[in-house]
Amino acid sequence: MAHDRDSESSPIDEGGLESGLTPLSPLRIKNRVSVVRIPGHWFVLATSGELTQAKPLARMLMKTPLVLFRDAKGVAHTLLDRCPHRSVPLSEGRIHQDGTLECGYHGWRFDGTGTCRAIPSLKGDCERKARNTPSYPTIEQQGFVWAYSTPGTSPQGEPASGVPTSRPHRFAFADDPSYVTVRQQFDQNGTLYSCIENALDVPHTAFLHRGLFRAESRGITLRVKVKRTSTSAEAEYIGEPRPPGVMARMLSPTGGEVQHWDRFLLPSIAQVEYRMGNENHVMADTALTPIDDFNTRLYGVVSIRTRIPVRGIKPIITALATRVLKQDSYMLEKQTKTIHAFGGEAFVSTEIDVLGKHIWRLLRAAERGIESVPGEQDELELVV
Amino acid sequence: MAHDRDSESSPIDEGGLESGLTPLSPLRIKNRVSVVRIPGHWFVLATSGELTQAKPLARMLMKTPLVLFRDAKGVAHTLLDRCPHRSVPLSEGRIHQDGTLECGYHGWRFDGTGTCRAIPSLKGDCERKARNTPSYPTIEQQGFVWAYSTPGTSPQGEPASGVPTSRPHRFAFADDPSYVTVRQQFDQNGTLYSCIENALDVPHTAFLHRGLFRAESRGITLRVKVKRTSTSAEAEYIGEPRPPGVMARMLSPTGGEVQHWDRFLLPSIAQVEYRMGNENHVMADTALTPIDDFNTRLYGVVSIRTRIPVRGIKPIITALATRVLKQDSYMLEKQTKTIHAFGGEAFVSTEIDVLGKHIWRLLRAAERGIESVPGEQDELELVV
Amino acid sequence: MAHDRDSESSPIDEGGLESGLTPLSPLRIKNRVSVVRIPGHWFVLATSGELTQAKPLARMLMKTPLVLFRDAKGVAHTLLDRCPHRSVPLSEGRIHQDGTLECGYHGWRFDGTGTCRAIPSLKGDCERKARNTPSYPTIEQQGFVWAYSTPGTSPQGEPASGVPTSRPHRFAFADDPSYVTVRQQFDQNGTLYSCIENALDVPHTAFLHRGLFRAESRGITLRVKVKRTSTSAEAEYIGEPRPPGVMARMLSPTGGEVQHWDRFLLPSIAQVEYRMGNENHVMADTALTPIDDFNTRLYGVVSIRTRIPVRGIKPIITALATRVLKQDSYMLEKQTKTIHAFGGEAFVSTEIDVLGKHIWRLLRAAERGIESVPGEQDELELVV
Repeated sequence: MAHDRDSESSPIDEGGLESGLTPLSPLRIKNRVSVVRIPGHWFVLATSGELTQAKPLARMLMKTPLVLFRDAKGVAHTLLDRCPHRSVPLSEGRIHQDGTLECGYHGWRFDGTGTCRAIPSLKGDCERKARNTPSYPTIEQQGFVWAYSTPGTSPQGEPASGVPTSRPHRFAFADDPSYVTVRQQFDQNGTLYSCIENALDVPHTAFLHRGLFRAESRGITLRVKVKRTSTSAEAEYIGEPRPPGVMARMLSPTGGEVQHWDRFLLPSIAQVEYRMGNENHVMADTALTPIDDFNTRLYGVVSIRTRIPVRGIKPIITALATRVLKQDSYMLEKQTKTIHAFGGEAFVSTEIDVLGKHIWRLLRAAERGIESVPGEQDELELVV
Repeated sequence: MAHDRDSESSPIDEGGLESGLTPLSPLRIKNRVSVVRIPGHWFVLATSGELTQAKPLARMLMKTPLVLFRDAKGVAHTLLDRCPHRSVPLSEGRIHQDGTLECGYHGWRFDGTGTCRAIPSLKGDCERKARNTPSYPTIEQQGFVWAYSTPGTSPQGEPASGVPTSRPHRFAFADDPSYVTVRQQFDQNGTLYSCIENALDVPHTAFLHRGLFRAESRGITLRVKVKRTSTSAEAEYIGEPRPPGVMARMLSPTGGEVQHWDRFLLPSIAQVEYRMGNENHVMADTALTPIDDFNTRLYGVVSIRTRIPVRGIKPIITALATRVLKQDSYMLEKQTKTIHAFGGEAFVSTEIDVLGKHIWRLLRAAERGIESVPGEQDELELVV
Repeated sequence: MAHDRDSESSPIDEGGLESGLTPLSPLRIKNRVSVVRIPGHWFVLATSGELTQAKPLARMLMKTPLVLFRDAKGVAHTLLDRCPHRSVPLSEGRIHQDGTLECGYHGWRFDGTGTCRAIPSLKGDCERKARNTPSYPTIEQQGFVWAYSTPGTSPQGEPASGVPTSRPHRFAFADDPSYVTVRQQFDQNGTLYSCIENALDVPHTAFLHRGLFRAESRGITLRVKVKRTSTSAEAEYIGEPRPPGVMARMLSPTGGEVQHWDRFLLPSIAQVEYRMGNENHVMADTALTPIDDFNTRLYGVVSIRTRIPVRGIKPIITALATRVLKQDSYMLEKQTKTIHAFGGEAFVSTEIDVLGKHIWRLLRAAERGIESVPGEQDELELVV
């Protein structure tokens, strides 16, 4: 039973190639692509700083235009970015002095629940269910504004299915003063799946980030333990000596063995954790937001505690992360272009694509609103 | 019977929202959009000045490429902008000295009826029905070139269904020397319906054109009488004091009550008329031409007679009209973008959207070539 | 039987117009367009100089992305431009020192047969059929790299149907020292069919290339003999006096009669041959490569032998050819735009479109992998 889920056909199964499509290109991969649209989960839509009191903020989540605004008390709200009257975006309007969001075309005003509170020129009561707009549960914490991907009110203004049963992810060390925490955001032209796998993939670092992050292979064999729950997947790398390269030397001047975990947490957290000794600790979380099927925004929060406090570590980490992310973005853009040129994906995996299949199955189960029952634990080897 | 037509389902009916499409966006509005394509009616394709004797002029009408040219006598003609030989646009050719339109690729020549008159290099007679191109009845009057939206000759060169039973609209005061007449053209990124409704809509002026055209609400209640015929709809506003704002002060320095009518005339004339006393009179006609489903060209003709002759009124009117049209264009562009983002429209109307439903029903009936039987007269109130 | 093929319906048949589609545009030509995709034939993908030892070269052939590279011995190879692992283009990678093509994302390496030879980080043997990528027979000759349009290896790395039964076209006088040979390449925005017909079409030269190539008609009647084989079509023009215009005067200062052949050779060679007397000889071959359905790359090889050796003839020929090709490209771009505006083609031909129908039938038969049995020879007249 459990294994039914894990063995299902997916765009990343091996052997996805079939012959016969055209004489020139013998692939038959049309319309197979790792796109998911996930209801009932929290996604970052903006940083707290981006959402000012002064004006509404347009955001796209899974192809749906949303608008964020702060009411008179500064509380953040998320509505569908569309006035029910004449289909113009509410984000083109302004915040009324009463804290409602006012449409720029005819001046209809909406509160944070999406209820229509005023229609200028209209005599009598403006409130009717058809004049409301869907709203989405919104939580602001740790400097991010998160929205729930199922509306909390229906277009008729009634409580809808979107009553959150969970809370947004917390960045474990972002508020810990013994850590240096760096935040960064970046857009990638790739599916949510491809961006998550890229963020948690070890083998590509030696090639795409040659010399920057890892050097060419030193021929060291690591053991990898893969653990699954119904909401997460983790790869633990055992036997990894301190890697060469700038970031590692900075982290641990005296060398030693590295503890290293890569984790995926539903719906879209990629977490990379490193420990070297008791005092060196890196926790790099990336919250990924699917803007549309092929564009993903990454909100990165990297918390670092080093043996010796390093002054001015933030600019170095930021510069390094920017270079790595630019290389990843470039390659993901080329991947996306290729997927479109062929009309779909056909990924062939090997056992060292350790987390890919787990990420895909967790995403697909979340898309369908079902639970992904984990299979057996994997244990395998990988050469670095 | 009459009311069957008026009560039909349309994109602008209230209650167009349904739940269920995706978890994120609970709208089900795919493929519902206020696009009409209207046969058998006259549309402005160019001003007389734009169509020179020197070269043909390419125009698009309801997504169909047309070419205008003047023959040796200066008479304007309209043909399908496509050579039947190799599908190149005739508008890339030139006017031959014999007054035919010559294709730039192989030199085929067509007269104003679309008949092929010459094929260079070909021995013998060139005339065969398959070599003709459709032509459209064309009338030039009051400085505009109008074409009929059903061809007058079939591709086989035979008289087709497009024998006009009507004449183009006349601008009533454009030739009257006691009026100052200003002409202007402008492109808007919106459906024909949305552009017409926008041109005749009162409530949006206080918001979109804040301070420019009307000020914020003064809380005055107007009565509105709505009259329908089978080819027009009219809203008469009763009890409107002189509005504040630049244009109104210019028109009537002493104040007084305003008589105000907004009219829609099939297929696409938006007419706004103001009277203040016996001598102040504004007649602002806009002839709208659907270029394609979401782009509309507006040809505006504003005739003004003021109590005291105002020297240099033209530049002021032109500047004001340009600002208003830019704001409208901006909002219509955002509306169009939103309609595409959601895959369709869902307009929710109130009783102060006084002309919208009538415009839509008249356009839909004209599209189907049937007569729209008007319903009861409306009378309602609106606060300005 | 033979005539069945020649009489089949095609986008270029006369009488392709039907009435009824919309009131405005009475054409019904949706989805009829002269696009072909031809398996089992050779196409030029690059000049020898464009394909360096230093890095791979991305090319598109009939909408399929291909990558060219040279192995350690300098031999050219063609693979599908897509890593089977994660769908990124191999052309973003680099040539490994062992002569394999290395993917830039995870470092998978492929030899010239498309076999996967290395997967970094993976313990054990990397070779499995699903990890190979299709390869295409490649031949380099006379300064061009040609690829076969059916892969020689399947995605499973096994010999596939693409075993060439032919060799690429040879440019007959390109290596002959008694000829001056000029090479040129140019992109045109048109279907393969439209670009070939344009290259071999006589009547358009008097209009599109007015004064440059041929002058206005002199009223001379030529006889045209059209010959067909199952792989070629030829038009021989008899009775043509030396044309006026720069190119002709340069070729033959003393005048005389011109022998002139236009030939189409499958899959995509357009050949124009002129002889004047025994010593003046022009052989202009164009090898056309369909990049995608509406974009075609032209590789021109013009070999000229003149009565009197003309110093510095190359720059003049190049400049003339560039102007002619720019005019053709402009018109083909407008044609393509018009075809898209109408949703398809409807070409009406006359008997002086001497080669068009033969080119189309040969291309369509090649697309289907069948033999086009020629009909009767044509003989007709044409006025120049």
